[in-house]
Amino acid sequence: MEIERKFLLNGVPPTMRFARREAIRQGYLALDGDTEVRIRIGPEGAVLTIKAGRGGVRVEEEIRLDTRQAEALWELTDGRRVQKTRRRVRLAATTGADLQVEVDEYAGALDGLVVAEVEFTDEAVARAFHPPPWFGRELTDDWRYANRSLASDGMPEG
Amino acid sequence: MEIERKFLLNGVPPTMRFARREAIRQGYLALDGDTEVRIRIGPEGAVLTIKAGRGGVRVEEEIRLDTRQAEALWELTDGRRVQKTRRRVRLAATTGADLQVEVDEYAGALDGLVVAEVEFTDEAVARAFHPPPWFGRELTDDWRYANRSLASDGMPEG
Repeated sequence: MEIERKFLLNGVPPTMRFARREAIRQGYLALDGDTEVRIRIGPEGAVLTIKAGRGGVRVEEEIRLDTRQAEALWELTDGRRVQKTRRRVRLAATTGADLQVEVDEYAGALDGLVVAEVEFTDEAVARAFHPPPWFGRELTDDWRYANRSLASDGMPEG
Repeated sequence: MEIERKFLLNGVPPTMRFARREAIRQGYLALDGDTEVRIRIGPEGAVLTIKAGRGGVRVEEEIRLDTRQAEALWELTDGRRVQKTRRRVRLAATTGADLQVEVDEYAGALDGLVVAEVEFTDEAVARAFHPPPWFGRELTDDWRYANRSLASDGMPEG
C-alpha cells in the first residue's frame, strides 16, 4: 500500500537545481472507469502499469516491457501523455525516519508545473506530516492534478 | 497482419467432439474507444494483449504474464469475461495451403454458442474462401459477436 500526499511548488527549489534528474514520460493506453493502463518510460526502462479498484478490490500491477514493445505501445498514447523531470530529495521528518520527496517538473503543454510528492508507509505518519514552507497548496485530493487528468486535460485552471 | 473470418455453427461437429480441447478464459481489463486490454488464460499460460487502432496506427502487443500477475489482473475482469473450449481442425482449401479452423464452444452465460474462425495470411485468399456446408451465417462484421461484446453484453439476440 502506497500512501502519497502531493503539493504544488512555485518552481524547482534552487538547492535542487543540480540534483540528479530522471527524464520520465508517461502515457495512457486506456482509461476505463477506475481502471487505468499506463506506460512509463524512464531511466530504469519501460513499465506497463495496470491500476484499478473495483468493488473493494484494489490492484496495481507492473509489467516490464522491452524497448520494442514499449515504443509500439507508446504510439497509442498520443494525446494522453505527460513528460517530466524528476528529482529526489530527503526531507527530515518530524516523526521517525526521513521522508523521500519526489519533485516533478513537467514539460511540454504542462511547462511551469512543479509538484512535490511525498510517500508514506503509514497512514498516521501521512496525516501527521507538516509540509515545509517551500511547499504550496496541497493537491492530494485535487483530481485535476492526477497524472491521468493532466495527460488528458492539460494544465488545470486556477 | 491477421485476417480472420468468423462463422456461426449449429454445434461442435460430431467428428470434432473428441479432438484435443483447450480451455480458454478471456477477460477485459479496459475498453477505451478502439483500445482493448485483455487477459487470456489458456493451456499455454497467461497473456496480456493490448489491441488498438488509432489514426492509421494499428497495434497488437502480447505480453506474457506469470501466474500471480495473471490471477491478480483476472480479478479486475469481473463482469467482462468469456469462457470457451477451443478445438482445431485443418480444412482443405480450394486454393493453396490448408486452412486452420478454430472451433470455439462458449460456456457459462454464452452456453450454446459455437463459432468457427478461419485465419488467412492473405486478403485475396480470405475473400476467395468458400465456407463448407457445416458453417452457418458469417459473423465477421457482426460486432455483437466480437469477444469484447460477448464478454460485456452477453448472447446476441437473433
